[in-house]
Order: sequence, then C-alpha cells, then structure tokens
Amino acid sequence: MFKRLCIIGTGLIGGSIARAARAQGLCQEIVAFGREKNQPNLQLAKDLGVIDQFYTHISAALDHADLVIIATPVGSMQSIFELIKPYWSATALYSDAGSTKASVVSAIEAVFGHVPNNFVPAHPIAGAERSGVDASNAELFKNRRLIITPLNNTDPQAVEKLTRFWEQIGSSVSEMSVEHHDTVLAATSHLPHILAFALVGLLGRKDEQREIFKYAAGGFKDFTRIASSDPTMWLDICLANKQDIIPLIRQFKAELSNIEQLLVDDQSQQLFDTFTYARNARQRFLDTLDD
Amino acid sequence: MFKRLCIIGTGLIGGSIARAARAQGLCQEIVAFGREKNQPNLQLAKDLGVIDQFYTHISAALDHADLVIIATPVGSMQSIFELIKPYWSATALYSDAGSTKASVVSAIEAVFGHVPNNFVPAHPIAGAERSGVDASNAELFKNRRLIITPLNNTDPQAVEKLTRFWEQIGSSVSEMSVEHHDTVLAATSHLPHILAFALVGLLGRKDEQREIFKYAAGGFKDFTRIASSDPTMWLDICLANKQDIIPLIRQFKAELSNIEQLLVDDQSQQLFDTFTYARNARQRFLDTLDD
Repeated sequence: MFKRLCIIGTGLIGGSIARAARAQGLCQEIVAFGREKNQPNLQLAKDLGVIDQFYTHISAALDHADLVIIATPVGSMQSIFELIKPYWSATALYSDAGSTKASVVSAIEAVFGHVPNNFVPAHPIAGAERSGVDASNAELFKNRRLIITPLNNTDPQAVEKLTRFWEQIGSSVSEMSVEHHDTVLAATSHLPHILAFALVGLLGRKDEQREIFKYAAGGFKDFTRIASSDPTMWLDICLANKQDIIPLIRQFKAELSNIEQLLVDDQSQQLFDTFTYARNARQRFLDTLDD
Repeated sequence: MFKRLCIIGTGLIGGSIARAARAQGLCQEIVAFGREKNQPNLQLAKDLGVIDQFYTHISAALDHADLVIIATPVGSMQSIFELIKPYWSATALYSDAGSTKASVVSAIEAVFGHVPNNFVPAHPIAGAERSGVDASNAELFKNRRLIITPLNNTDPQAVEKLTRFWEQIGSSVSEMSVEHHDTVLAATSHLPHILAFALVGLLGRKDEQREIFKYAAGGFKDFTRIASSDPTMWLDICLANKQDIIPLIRQFKAELSNIEQLLVDDQSQQLFDTFTYARNARQRFLDTLDD
C-alpha cells in the first residue's frame, strides 16, 4: 500500500487511476499537482472525491509522495520532469501513462541526463473518446492491458511494485521494449486515429455533409468514434511517434492504391481475395481477444 | 396487408425483412426463392420459421406473390431479373434491398429495356458485420433509415405502399435520386468499408500481427468492425459503385498525404486544427443522429 499517490495531470486517465486506486484501497491519500490555470479542473476533481487535495506548487504536491504518476499529454512531459527534478526522491516510485514511450524516455533523459532507475515507463491501453476528469471512472482499466517498458537500469523492484498496482486495479500487465511498444501502438492505435480524423475531416468539408451524416449507419458511428478523441493528446502522440507513424501512413496509402487499381481494372477475384483476407485477419484478432 | 411476400435472397437482410413483416402481421404468407445449391440455407430459414415455404423454381415462388423483394448481393440482380421477367405481374409490387442503386436500375433496364413502373428501388441502411439467415432478426430495421430512389415513371402508389411497409417494420423512409444515393453512400459506407478492409489487411500481413492484435484496444475493435462484413456483398458493392468510390479513395489519399506532410514538417498548429476540425465534424454528425 502506498502512503501518498500524487497524480500529475488529472484528466480522464489520471482521474481514473485515482478513482481505481481509492476503490481498491491501494493508497492512504491521493493528491494532485496542476498549474494555476487548471485550478477549476482540480477543484472539480476534489469536489468529485477523485482526489483528497491539490496543489499548484510541485514541492507541496510531491511532499511525502511515494507513488507519482504523470498522466499529462506526452508533449508536456519534459516540462513536468523539469518541475519534478529538484524534488526527486530516491525512495518514491515514479511512472507515467503516456501513449508513446520513446518520447517519454527522451524527455526524462533530456532533463536528468539519464533515466532514473525508479522511473518505470508505462502505458495503460484504455482509450476513450471522452476526456476530462468528469469522464473518469474506477473501472476504466479493468480487463485492459497495461504495458510496462522498462530500461536496462530500471529497478526490478520498482517494476514489480508498479505491476502489482496495475494488476490490483484490474489490468493485465505485459512488458516490452520501448521501441517495440511504439511500433505496435502505431499500428493498432495511432494509424487508426489518423484514418478516422482524415475521414471525418474529408466528409465534413463536403457540401452535402449534412446529408452524408444523416444517412450514415451504425458502422460509420463505430468507425469514426476515435475521431472524437482529444486533439491535444493526439497531436502530441502523432508528433512523438512520427518515425513509426509516417511509414505506416505510406504503407496504408499503397494498400489503398492497390484496391483502387483493382477497382479500376475490375479485378473481381483479387478484390474478393483482399476483402476475404481482411475478414479472416480480423477474425484472428477477435480470437486473440478471447484468449 | 400483402397476401404473399416472396423473398429472393434469404440472408441477413432478406431473413430480417421476412421476420419483421411476420412480426408486424404485414402479410399472410412468406415464401422464398433460391437456387438448388442454396437449399440447405432455405431449409434452415424454414426450420427457423423465417419463411413458410421455399421454392427452387422461380415460377412457383412468384405465383400469387403480391410483394417481391430481392435481397441478393447487387452483382447477381441482373440474373434474378432475367429469371423473374417471364412471370412479371403488373399487379404485384417489386422492390430490392441493394446497397447501390444505379447498378440495380441498370440491371433491370438491361433485362426489360426499361424499368417497370411497379419496381421501386430501395435500400435499408442497416449494416451488420454478421451475415446469413441465422443472424436475421425482426428488429434489424427498427429506427433505421430506408432510402427509396424512385424513377420518373415509378408508380406513386407503389412507392406509397412500399413506404408504408417499411415504416411498419420501424424504418424512417426518405426519397432521393439514384445518383445522389450512390454518392452519399459511397462516402458514409463504401469508403469506410474499404478503409477497414485495407487496414486489417495491412496489419494482418505484418510479422508482428499477433502482438499487434493482442495489444489493440476497444477503439481498434470498433474501427475494424466493418472489416468483418461479407466479402461477396462488398465486392459487388465496390464494383457496382466504383465511379463514386474511386474518386473518394483518391481524395482520402490526398487527405492522408496532407497529414503525413504536416507530420514530416512538425506543423503542430495545422495538425491540431486538422484533428479539431474532424472532432467537431463528428460532433455535428452525432447531433444529426439526435435530431
């Protein structure tokens, strides 16, 4: 059990971690740090009972905290590490919830010159198109995956403590390398988000958009759900992982060009094979979920 | 009330029309026509109580039918019209459930030399990634949209009768031109299906596909749901509406190229604006659903 959990970034993810930790009795006290301008949001988190207290001074927020989780958009992590650095405690456990891992590791390296061995990079795979602490809930991570990407020097005890924390709030914890994490997530999450943003943006600019949207079926609603995700968060993710995302965009365009050419040439059999291959691949995906 | 509803193509859509019509008491008898090789499926439909009887001879199936609905993949419609032609009744109402309308109109024109005034082209917008009569249900069209695309010579009374039929099984009926229907559906349905097929196909061919699928979150599942759709049906739709789909694929690739270039150039503000525009467009779409 932790004495004091300090959440930095009390949005959907940070708020849900706090709620889940409290629901499972994993810490005695939950505090949050935020900048002055975020005071209304922090007050809301306190009013909702998500956190016990909040501070706009980092030293007060970190005081006696033995678990610190940074749940801000990945683009602001470096400035957070700069704020924390003077108060870094060798006995506390530090982690994050960033959707990209190489950028987070670079950010902490840029500030410390190395990655402290009590910082454990982590990523809860629990997307939601809603954002903000009012959307947070204690069940968000239940039956979801949490990926830890330890470095060579990461303290195994710190990894173990963080693993236990996430398992207790219902997640299934895996470990992989930073690079592998970013490659896999570019495919399953980052590229699909870009496709959804691109599609809704394209259709939204058409003259007949009202009618297009009016006659869209449930499939379209599901398909575009992730286009309702937080633009700030996704801007950060896309820039942070562009080295993996850009090649995937190019591969996807080639895939589309292939289908386009098959259509132009009326290549029925090859189109049928393409669609069938995809349907079977999705079935393999569904089978994986059942494992 | 119709005396005898004849369904041609007893899959998800045809089966659901039959079930809904029976549930609402819209016809005295429901029969189906199918080819010899589809006998097991027709027997299943009969065993499930979806239809009262089935025939592998078109003349027997059409005998005394006063409502005939063709719910086969659009690519087979012309051969169906050829089968029906000798038994065409001036007093019956004929319609279809094809996802593309220009191709259906061309098919019937090719067979009859014109479009009979008692044929009313229609399209229930009720997608489902499942297929087959065992997936059919009486509620499939409830609160869904049904688009009728009448031609200049279509009998207004036939349109009215078909409208009433679909309204009674719970659909909200609209009318638009054949061309407009195909343009709108290319954007909301055909392109998204191609994107989903392309994405799952691309990822399914990657060496690390097992891991990619393992770490995919709920967003990916929703996003790719439509990639589980019936390949035969979608092959037909894509070929039937390629004149609308091909330009959309090109526009979508240009949209992706734009995002790709913004990423390459680290154009944060423009990326943020792109994602924000898309999120707002999706909100307009959701607002449309609430209307």
